[in-house]
Amino acid sequence: FTKIGFCGIRFLISVMHKTDVFTDCYCIVILHFFLVHTQESLEDEVSPRNKEQKNSDGSKDFCIKNIHQAAFGRREIEIAELEMPALMILRKAAQGEKPLVGARIVGCTHITAHTAVLMETLSALGAQCRWAACNIYSIQNEVAAALAERGVPVFAWKGESEDDYFWCIDSCVNVEGWEPNLILDDGGDMTHWIYKKYPQLLKNIKGIVEESVTGVHRLHQLYKTGKLCGPAINVNESVIKQKFDNFYFCKESILDGLKRTTDVTLSGKQVLVCGYGEVGKGCCAALKGLRAIVYVTEVDPICALQACMDGFQLARLNEVIEMVDIVITCTGNINVVLREHLEHMKNGCIVCNMGHSNTEIDVTSLMTPELTWRRIRAHVDHIIWPDGKIIVLLAEGRLLNLSCSTVPVYVLSITATTQVLALIELFNAPERGYKQDIYVFPRKMDEFVAALHLQNFDAHLTELTDEQVKYIGVNKNGPFKPSYYR
Amino acid sequence: FTKIGFCGIRFLISVMHKTDVFTDCYCIVILHFFLVHTQESLEDEVSPRNKEQKNSDGSKDFCIKNIHQAAFGRREIEIAELEMPALMILRKAAQGEKPLVGARIVGCTHITAHTAVLMETLSALGAQCRWAACNIYSIQNEVAAALAERGVPVFAWKGESEDDYFWCIDSCVNVEGWEPNLILDDGGDMTHWIYKKYPQLLKNIKGIVEESVTGVHRLHQLYKTGKLCGPAINVNESVIKQKFDNFYFCKESILDGLKRTTDVTLSGKQVLVCGYGEVGKGCCAALKGLRAIVYVTEVDPICALQACMDGFQLARLNEVIEMVDIVITCTGNINVVLREHLEHMKNGCIVCNMGHSNTEIDVTSLMTPELTWRRIRAHVDHIIWPDGKIIVLLAEGRLLNLSCSTVPVYVLSITATTQVLALIELFNAPERGYKQDIYVFPRKMDEFVAALHLQNFDAHLTELTDEQVKYIGVNKNGPFKPSYYR
Amino acid sequence: FTKIGFCGIRFLISVMHKTDVFTDCYCIVILHFFLVHTQESLEDEVSPRNKEQKNSDGSKDFCIKNIHQAAFGRREIEIAELEMPALMILRKAAQGEKPLVGARIVGCTHITAHTAVLMETLSALGAQCRWAACNIYSIQNEVAAALAERGVPVFAWKGESEDDYFWCIDSCVNVEGWEPNLILDDGGDMTHWIYKKYPQLLKNIKGIVEESVTGVHRLHQLYKTGKLCGPAINVNESVIKQKFDNFYFCKESILDGLKRTTDVTLSGKQVLVCGYGEVGKGCCAALKGLRAIVYVTEVDPICALQACMDGFQLARLNEVIEMVDIVITCTGNINVVLREHLEHMKNGCIVCNMGHSNTEIDVTSLMTPELTWRRIRAHVDHIIWPDGKIIVLLAEGRLLNLSCSTVPVYVLSITATTQVLALIELFNAPERGYKQDIYVFPRKMDEFVAALHLQNFDAHLTELTDEQVKYIGVNKNGPFKPSYYR
Amino acid sequence: FTKIGFCGIRFLISVMHKTDVFTDCYCIVILHFFLVHTQESLEDEVSPRNKEQKNSDGSKDFCIKNIHQAAFGRREIEIAELEMPALMILRKAAQGEKPLVGARIVGCTHITAHTAVLMETLSALGAQCRWAACNIYSIQNEVAAALAERGVPVFAWKGESEDDYFWCIDSCVNVEGWEPNLILDDGGDMTHWIYKKYPQLLKNIKGIVEESVTGVHRLHQLYKTGKLCGPAINVNESVIKQKFDNFYFCKESILDGLKRTTDVTLSGKQVLVCGYGEVGKGCCAALKGLRAIVYVTEVDPICALQACMDGFQLARLNEVIEMVDIVITCTGNINVVLREHLEHMKNGCIVCNMGHSNTEIDVTSLMTPELTWRRIRAHVDHIIWPDGKIIVLLAEGRLLNLSCSTVPVYVLSITATTQVLALIELFNAPERGYKQDIYVFPRKMDEFVAALHLQNFDAHLTELTDEQVKYIGVNKNGPFKPSYYR
Repeated sequence: FTKIGFCGIRFLISVMHKTDVFTDCYCIVILHFFLVHTQESLEDEVSPRNKEQKNSDGSKDFCIKNIHQAAFGRREIEIAELEMPALMILRKAAQGEKPLVGARIVGCTHITAHTAVLMETLSALGAQCRWAACNIYSIQNEVAAALAERGVPVFAWKGESEDDYFWCIDSCVNVEGWEPNLILDDGGDMTHWIYKKYPQLLKNIKGIVEESVTGVHRLHQLYKTGKLCGPAINVNESVIKQKFDNFYFCKESILDGLKRTTDVTLSGKQVLVCGYGEVGKGCCAALKGLRAIVYVTEVDPICALQACMDGFQLARLNEVIEMVDIVITCTGNINVVLREHLEHMKNGCIVCNMGHSNTEIDVTSLMTPELTWRRIRAHVDHIIWPDGKIIVLLAEGRLLNLSCSTVPVYVLSITATTQVLALIELFNAPERGYKQDIYVFPRKMDEFVAALHLQNFDAHLTELTDEQVKYIGVNKNGPFKPSYYR
Repeated sequence: FTKIGFCGIRFLISVMHKTDVFTDCYCIVILHFFLVHTQESLEDEVSPRNKEQKNSDGSKDFCIKNIHQAAFGRREIEIAELEMPALMILRKAAQGEKPLVGARIVGCTHITAHTAVLMETLSALGAQCRWAACNIYSIQNEVAAALAERGVPVFAWKGESEDDYFWCIDSCVNVEGWEPNLILDDGGDMTHWIYKKYPQLLKNIKGIVEESVTGVHRLHQLYKTGKLCGPAINVNESVIKQKFDNFYFCKESILDGLKRTTDVTLSGKQVLVCGYGEVGKGCCAALKGLRAIVYVTEVDPICALQACMDGFQLARLNEVIEMVDIVITCTGNINVVLREHLEHMKNGCIVCNMGHSNTEIDVTSLMTPELTWRRIRAHVDHIIWPDGKIIVLLAEGRLLNLSCSTVPVYVLSITATTQVLALIELFNAPERGYKQDIYVFPRKMDEFVAALHLQNFDAHLTELTDEQVKYIGVNKNGPFKPSYYR
Repeated sequence: FTKIGFCGIRFLISVMHKTDVFTDCYCIVILHFFLVHTQESLEDEVSPRNKEQKNSDGSKDFCIKNIHQAAFGRREIEIAELEMPALMILRKAAQGEKPLVGARIVGCTHITAHTAVLMETLSALGAQCRWAACNIYSIQNEVAAALAERGVPVFAWKGESEDDYFWCIDSCVNVEGWEPNLILDDGGDMTHWIYKKYPQLLKNIKGIVEESVTGVHRLHQLYKTGKLCGPAINVNESVIKQKFDNFYFCKESILDGLKRTTDVTLSGKQVLVCGYGEVGKGCCAALKGLRAIVYVTEVDPICALQACMDGFQLARLNEVIEMVDIVITCTGNINVVLREHLEHMKNGCIVCNMGHSNTEIDVTSLMTPELTWRRIRAHVDHIIWPDGKIIVLLAEGRLLNLSCSTVPVYVLSITATTQVLALIELFNAPERGYKQDIYVFPRKMDEFVAALHLQNFDAHLTELTDEQVKYIGVNKNGPFKPSYYR
Repeated sequence: FTKIGFCGIRFLISVMHKTDVFTDCYCIVILHFFLVHTQESLEDEVSPRNKEQKNSDGSKDFCIKNIHQAAFGRREIEIAELEMPALMILRKAAQGEKPLVGARIVGCTHITAHTAVLMETLSALGAQCRWAACNIYSIQNEVAAALAERGVPVFAWKGESEDDYFWCIDSCVNVEGWEPNLILDDGGDMTHWIYKKYPQLLKNIKGIVEESVTGVHRLHQLYKTGKLCGPAINVNESVIKQKFDNFYFCKESILDGLKRTTDVTLSGKQVLVCGYGEVGKGCCAALKGLRAIVYVTEVDPICALQACMDGFQLARLNEVIEMVDIVITCTGNINVVLREHLEHMKNGCIVCNMGHSNTEIDVTSLMTPELTWRRIRAHVDHIIWPDGKIIVLLAEGRLLNLSCSTVPVYVLSITATTQVLALIELFNAPERGYKQDIYVFPRKMDEFVAALHLQNFDAHLTELTDEQVKYIGVNKNGPFKPSYYR
């Protein structure tokens, strides 16, 4: 990490340290792909910037690792499409009227199968898009290839240098005869590049859609200094993202993560989950579903009381550490599991982290001469005490999802849909509909995102009668709850 | 209902009709006690106002049905005490310093076993209290007797007239040599009686604690017209009340309500729950726990998506009406189950209401000559179609909890504790600490209420280290979350 | 109990003490009705034997408490009919061919709403029936009245004396011009009365159906001594009874029993269940469904391992006694909860028994001078220690179901259907089809009973294709599993 | 498969086709390892029979792929040890008295990490062992290396030919100066090799332990023809194996299998499980735990009624096929899912098999010209209809566990422990304690196996008092239930 010096990552990390866990499962995804894909052989050491490639149509307007991986990437995209029905519905709806005809979007997001579905949806809705990566680790080269093959000018490859990173961003905007009018950003690097290098483009920008805590933070700084050039929509704080993202992402991945690494049988196992925020709630729900016995630690009495009423025993770490089989940290805080706790764990105890910070477990405290580390499998270390006791440490205390190749795409679909709708909204808003301000994604559109995702469940909404609408005093088409309601 | 004319009830009902279901389980309690206790023989037709009674200490400063019921009432209070540990902790804490010494509280709440525990806690904390009922139906005469026997001036009996009702309120405040300095209100009748009849008392009032939607609404009207005399704390919108009250109240009572009335075996039964707000979520959780198959109807796409992700099939009423065994309404809306739906239900289908409005099921549509009503048990009617089909209607479409004698007292304890803390806060605030405004119960105190309730679970909170406090940027003693977090 | 001297009860009790819990939920029902119905005012002290009553058709061939209760009893029967669809299907099927035409059945069973549905089904199938009670406590007078009104010669009233008891039995068989050819017995008293008093009737008896452990035991004694006159079918050991009865009966009634007596909120409560047989498994499943934290004690390692794998913590009583909120005994053994355990329970701990023996909790050990007993509600005692600690004892250590007015009728329907089918089988068997032996209810008929009960769930069985039948080597119509499979 | 001609496999397959699903999860393991490990590069084409290898101690008494993989294999064994505590307890107990000193065991089982733990336990108990594989696919070469390195004469490598297979078996028994006195067999090939080639060894054989349906079948054939030379213990039909193996194996692996292959989010998904035997029950429990909506098909009414009472909707395949998202076959039968069903599935439907037969889904019916097969990932095919509809077929209709790298070792530990105890029993039995017969594993030893596995849960058994022992009439140390009890 030390060598990477560009501001986006530094900024991201600094902000991550200041926020709580209730934010962004994309962080998981980033690191996930980083670790999963670093094993791949670096077959080709020539920099993509120095390679000439063209797709089947002869286009060279992209820069990626290897266009020949397009078929593989296409298959990964196809898998993702099956779990992102809301976007597919939008595409189908656009067969008549295309709401983004005339939109020219520069995007800077993760380059993965599910964001590829997002990009291709924007294209299907009529937009012209140019794309760079917001993160150098998360890039799926094969997906980039599939996009390039279909004609999306995409500039990204895994392991690009800091210089490459900004070259890619620049390649999206520095195009003769093409000027963007919408920005889809994740972290703010694209936005700031334009502000810094191409301020003349800003006058045409109809709006910015930003989905990360970091990026929103940076937009607020622009706003405060009066530099915000147009409306921005903050999709991070949408109700639907907050209520669905972390909880379901963790619920759907924790069991998998534990089993792949350790083959552990979970029925009846005693598990300690540190933290009962959305991440902890998700882990607990999944573990209980498979009939583990779950203990919870919490610092916030309200979350603690929820844990109790949900049937989990609330304890302090040191009270149960000697009896549990598995410890999972979900606090977003630091030094939650210390060497003294590890000392008291029983033989075979599995220790891992689902929170967002890799400092929840004090792993460095285990790097002492009397302890033997043995790498047992990828992402699995046995730390062996002098008396033979083994502690099973997963992913060296980094996110467990790292070692887990599954990503619950359907959950990610919610954010992606929110982004598309925000872009449509900004593009189609009347001239002075939005001011130079940062808008929260409105509840009514939240409800629309939810409604699109209902299709996946063969779920049928009930419509209020006129009488009922009048009785409870809402609009027939929503919003159905006040904005503060969660 | 038509005969009862006083403004409190009228106002209450009008407001109830305008609000949604996410508010107040006390409404259930009111009607509950009304129906449960109307069976009791009206042994004594002399009005309490015309009876001379005194307690063992010779005091006559109360007006209740029958002081001889005190022992019975005391036992009901003792049962409730076991499930209200937070208040018992406050009492114990008050053995040294009593935070309400000097407080003179006039209260106007339900008079039931669990509010009695509240009142006696206020006394134990040093307060002098005088008490009237906020509802003429919910009064437990035996509990009033037990309070009177212990020396609390209580003025309430079940079935009091409108005139009696205000006479009781008046008896609390119209006392020579005793002036209240705090008001604990539920619905606003006490507050408004003082405003109207004894405005001179207002100058001494250090604050008002109000727990109902109705009462808060009335306080806002005072505020808008500049008449609010001092600070008021709205305990209805406290986070803890919103997150715990309706959900757990319904989860803990739905199974009981169905079984007592119908002996129905719930394993594998197909149940339709209309509405997936807090009430619906509570019902669904309990039914799923006993392995019923649950369908849900919803109008709000976000709640609908939650229902789906929680494993319930979302359908429209008419799509599943022919196959379900039980229909439960939890919408807070009107005319949800209509005659046309009842026509299509199968033989033996049970229909009941857990929402707050008795108009969710169109019961009047069943009062037609071709249908035979047969009262099978208390609160259970068989509606018999010409072809012999039977629909089992519970509580004539009023709240199911009516026919169910259990009340999950522990859940009610949360609100009661909030009320006590709000009173302590107002009484001990520095002279100009609070303005003439309506305050929401602060999150930090919410956290304190939660912490007190943890005792019941032998639950141990974790304390943040200094390092951790600094890392996430909160105060060591909370609040731990931003106020908007739910 | 000491005054009651007849052999059936004595024998029953002696056998109950020797068997385990995996037997008979009817025991619960017996005592249940005993306790629930003793409150009813003994309006009429004239013995039914000395009263002349006739039904609407003028028949006097019955002897019950009060024919005027027929309408009330009919309503209770109607409630039960809705949860006994298998019998209703058999009735409907019998509208063409009636398989019991010519059958003359003497029955000796509980006289309750659900056995009434059984009796009337036998009549609908063509049988002539005469009926007495097998238990003097469980009789529902109003149900007996409803049966008599419909023309069933029934001889039973609650609280009959021992002499009455056998007079009633005698009245069923000692009839001029009517000789029974089938016996439906529960405990063996009818069978033995005929053996003793009317041996000449035995030659016409085509078979005996017996459903209790006791009765089967007595049949085996007859068999061993060569006195068994014809075939008998033991319906107690049918697979379906063993797999469904205790588990679902307890699962469906435990929550109700706890809540009615104590208003306890179960979410998050710590509960100790002693014993993880079918009764314990049922209780644990229900408690977990409502999110209690459940501990289990067991002596059998296999059941213990099931408890562990099902997510319950296995402990010894003394290890967890100080922390639990509720203790439920389900062992079928004696002196499981002793005074020393009660000493260590915390204030407010609820103690109750779901097993079959009232000796699981050593209640007599609590009858010492330093402890105060206070009857708080019906079936609820507070036992108060000198330091003020309260233990909440339910039903004085007898079955919790005593104080719980709900009976999951659907579960009882399974046994009732089994009885009907066994009677049909015996009546229609070819002359020498069955020997003078005791037969277990065959698996294929078990499957038929199950199939009939599927109707209630709108459940559709799949039929094997010819190819599939051949592949797994079973008959197309079953049985589908070997007889030993559970 | 066509080339492999030896009788064991042929016999195995023929028996598998005749038995039901309630048997043997080892079948899954076999195929599992086959598929998982075939990807490994065949680095070394020299047959192990022609290679000279020796371990660190200089021993050459083994024949395996590559002794240099020992360290890797050792790590896999260490992972397994952590989940097989019962065997580790036996090892520890043997530090004093070694119950198998003098035992000379020839084994023929799978050669995997968990059977390695079994073998090394036998060694630790004092036995001398020689080992061959019972299956040519399931061999983990690295585990064989680890065993050889530790001095176990093991003769096995993945992909050995039929000739190799019997050469390996022969190498175990055809040793100068070493004669086996116990046989641990899985399938019967070792036993039959000795019968055929070395009958002179039989006189010293103290017993045979056999764990497969196939092997037991072959033993019965020997018994019938009077050729059985000594006692044999059938560990397949032990109560604990029957109650734990299939249910928990499937419950612990189904979620993983689905997610790794498809990234599917399971919350709220509609899943059809065909068959509600132990395999189906396990799948349903896991799916419900993650909040899928589960439908079940069944042919046996008793299992069907269990499905209903457990809260699953029972339907026929064709009734729900159009609406489900996932179809899982668990029937053990053939042609359950046909082309006509696949035709009606919706776009994206996932189809897979958890039963034991690869003929449950009629995969060949999909091999028609109008359908396009696209291999999307390992074990994942998209079958594409002319209209674009995609069906996601997993593992080409073979067992889903194939594509799932996790094996719940703890569940397998139960069978392994049973085998060890059976060997100890036979070795230590008095001269004429067992006859030349096939014994079922006794219930008391079942209980012992269960007790050993309780250690993993920190679970404490309760001991009966003398009074209680007498009351229920069992022995203090068990068995606690009659042998027929399940």
